[in-house]
Amino acid sequence: MGVREDAGGFDLRAPDGTRYRVDLTTGVLDPGNGLLAGYVAGRRVVAFVSPTVDRLYGERLRAYLTGALAPGQWSVHVIPTGEHRKTLASVERVCALAKADGLDRHGVMLAVGGGIVADVVGFAASIYARGIRYIKVNTTLVGQVDVGVGVKTGVNALHTKNMFGAYHPAHASLNDPAFLATLPHREIRCGLAEIVKMAVILDGDLFGALERHPDVFRRPDDEGGAEREHPHGELEQYVLRTSMRLMMEELCPNLREHDLARLVDFGHTFSPVVETAGEHRLEHGEAVAVDMALSAHLARLLGLADEETCERIVALLRRIGLPVFDPGTCTPDLMTQALRASWQRRGRKLHLVVPTGIGKSAFVEELADLPQEVLVAAIEALAADGGRGDA
Amino acid sequence: MGVREDAGGFDLRAPDGTRYRVDLTTGVLDPGNGLLAGYVAGRRVVAFVSPTVDRLYGERLRAYLTGALAPGQWSVHVIPTGEHRKTLASVERVCALAKADGLDRHGVMLAVGGGIVADVVGFAASIYARGIRYIKVNTTLVGQVDVGVGVKTGVNALHTKNMFGAYHPAHASLNDPAFLATLPHREIRCGLAEIVKMAVILDGDLFGALERHPDVFRRPDDEGGAEREHPHGELEQYVLRTSMRLMMEELCPNLREHDLARLVDFGHTFSPVVETAGEHRLEHGEAVAVDMALSAHLARLLGLADEETCERIVALLRRIGLPVFDPGTCTPDLMTQALRASWQRRGRKLHLVVPTGIGKSAFVEELADLPQEVLVAAIEALAADGGRGDA
Repeated sequence: MGVREDAGGFDLRAPDGTRYRVDLTTGVLDPGNGLLAGYVAGRRVVAFVSPTVDRLYGERLRAYLTGALAPGQWSVHVIPTGEHRKTLASVERVCALAKADGLDRHGVMLAVGGGIVADVVGFAASIYARGIRYIKVNTTLVGQVDVGVGVKTGVNALHTKNMFGAYHPAHASLNDPAFLATLPHREIRCGLAEIVKMAVILDGDLFGALERHPDVFRRPDDEGGAEREHPHGELEQYVLRTSMRLMMEELCPNLREHDLARLVDFGHTFSPVVETAGEHRLEHGEAVAVDMALSAHLARLLGLADEETCERIVALLRRIGLPVFDPGTCTPDLMTQALRASWQRRGRKLHLVVPTGIGKSAFVEELADLPQEVLVAAIEALAADGGRGDA
Repeated sequence: MGVREDAGGFDLRAPDGTRYRVDLTTGVLDPGNGLLAGYVAGRRVVAFVSPTVDRLYGERLRAYLTGALAPGQWSVHVIPTGEHRKTLASVERVCALAKADGLDRHGVMLAVGGGIVADVVGFAASIYARGIRYIKVNTTLVGQVDVGVGVKTGVNALHTKNMFGAYHPAHASLNDPAFLATLPHREIRCGLAEIVKMAVILDGDLFGALERHPDVFRRPDDEGGAEREHPHGELEQYVLRTSMRLMMEELCPNLREHDLARLVDFGHTFSPVVETAGEHRLEHGEAVAVDMALSAHLARLLGLADEETCERIVALLRRIGLPVFDPGTCTPDLMTQALRASWQRRGRKLHLVVPTGIGKSAFVEELADLPQEVLVAAIEALAADGGRGDA
């Protein structure tokens, strides 16, 4: 039971019997890389990719599948992405394409892309013939350190994020840092927000490394689409591996979220309202950064964390280029509303995660433990942080 | 691990960690029966019933929930039934109704009815907020001995039965023989087909009891809707309990059907084609009866079962009033097509279950083990059986 790390990745064995593998590899679509080929050998594969992945990697993916499988045993479909396409209709379309390609319960759905593709295809695989194998190749940083190592799938419906879904572990989750070279920098920053999250709540050393190298995933010419050299190969590996391991260790005993007090919810209490009330002007990772900064100030004002802890968290987020304040949504009214919604969602407990140091955290359990004047003071402090301009 | 029987029902613990309870009770909706009330205590309940259940038991259900829960904590919705309403659209509707009633992940979906209601509501509960509790009260005989004791949920789509679904155990499955008193006799016969199935493959004593009392669930005036006296109370209990236990013991080691060689598939190889090619003129249980009679003749012709075994099986089905032949669909062409479809579905193995005696069975594993002339001869023998008129 637990998470076992080896040279190639991680094996997770949860108390409820769930087991899955998360792999770290390089050149996952190189003809000589046998990892994915081994997972799909002898099975029919229907692959789904986002338009961007198709443009950048579609040719390599098709060449790889040609080498790995017999003709007629595989197909590739491009599916639209974007939060508004994370719907049951998209899931039905994925299933219909798979059925038309002859996929039966012994086949594999393959998702190559970011969180949206993994969420939609993973949920499709969970209901297709009452559940078939799916394999994900995570091409984004958020995918590799967050979505890709967990078991959640889902789509939006009834005006609710992830209203329908399943806890359906991927048969395998393949992560290749080389994909990060073609990511827009804003997506890198969003991935870093989730990495900072893990560092703050669990790992002071990882936090220190990020302070020294907030540009760990940044390439010299950083807004383009072409592939570039890795200036931080080893450091990148350390940051990726550590984040993945920390996340899996946190998820493992509580894969299906029966316990609603989750440290990995740090940054995920106020952020849903920052995202939705802001009409998705901020990306998820950016909203998480704002939430972490607010939570750090709350911890400071409640006497749970010292000044320095709060300052270091806010400073690191700013150095990465993440926002720490969103004037349109960080109002006492909306943030109170976010607290109440979380309290409702978490079984009428607040379970607000706050840092108690760098690499240490605790829960504020009750709504009553967070007086309104503390929330107002934290928002004011945040506004001062956010107003200082970029570091 | 395994199935533990007690006075009130059965506890199942599967090797993969799945656990669930199947209860046998009487007067499940009587105000004094605390079983269901115990399961839903303190939770919001959204109940779904078929129009028939609403007509016969809706008032009692509402009175029961009024007694068990605070006002505003429960609601009852009537949903249409019929195989053609087993769709994803029905699942979405169930979820939308639940959402409108304020059901969150701590709430319960309650299904009161037969297999269709359980399949649709069970699947809805499996995807709602990534899976919430559902409880089923099985009101039909098939529900009580078959659908109700397993974990399968699903809906039809893409021209395929149960195309989408989940293995989602009910939190509890409540079975009250009193409901059988209002069942049309055709539905009783269909339930008996599944009971005969279990008896043939596993339990000669149960088979003998059915031979002596093929009318075990039959009431004197048997086509009506009103409640009647139980002429066979103890025998009924014995037959119900034994069928449920046998089914659960068979399912337990293989809940998610990773092993495609399943004895409980007896009667379920030819029957899908008898049902669909016959455009659902025959009910599922009736098609299963035809399939069992055909399989019995195949066993006899292959030298796997003696004449007497075959004759007793066919004779019992006829005495119950079940068909043993369907001239429109039991043709060599269609039955060969059914064999090929099963072979495909079962991972390119036939896994055809045949009786090798009363209470004993075996698999015919390969298509090649079943020569065409044997199939033709079995169909001809079946036609002779079926032509003899009702017993």
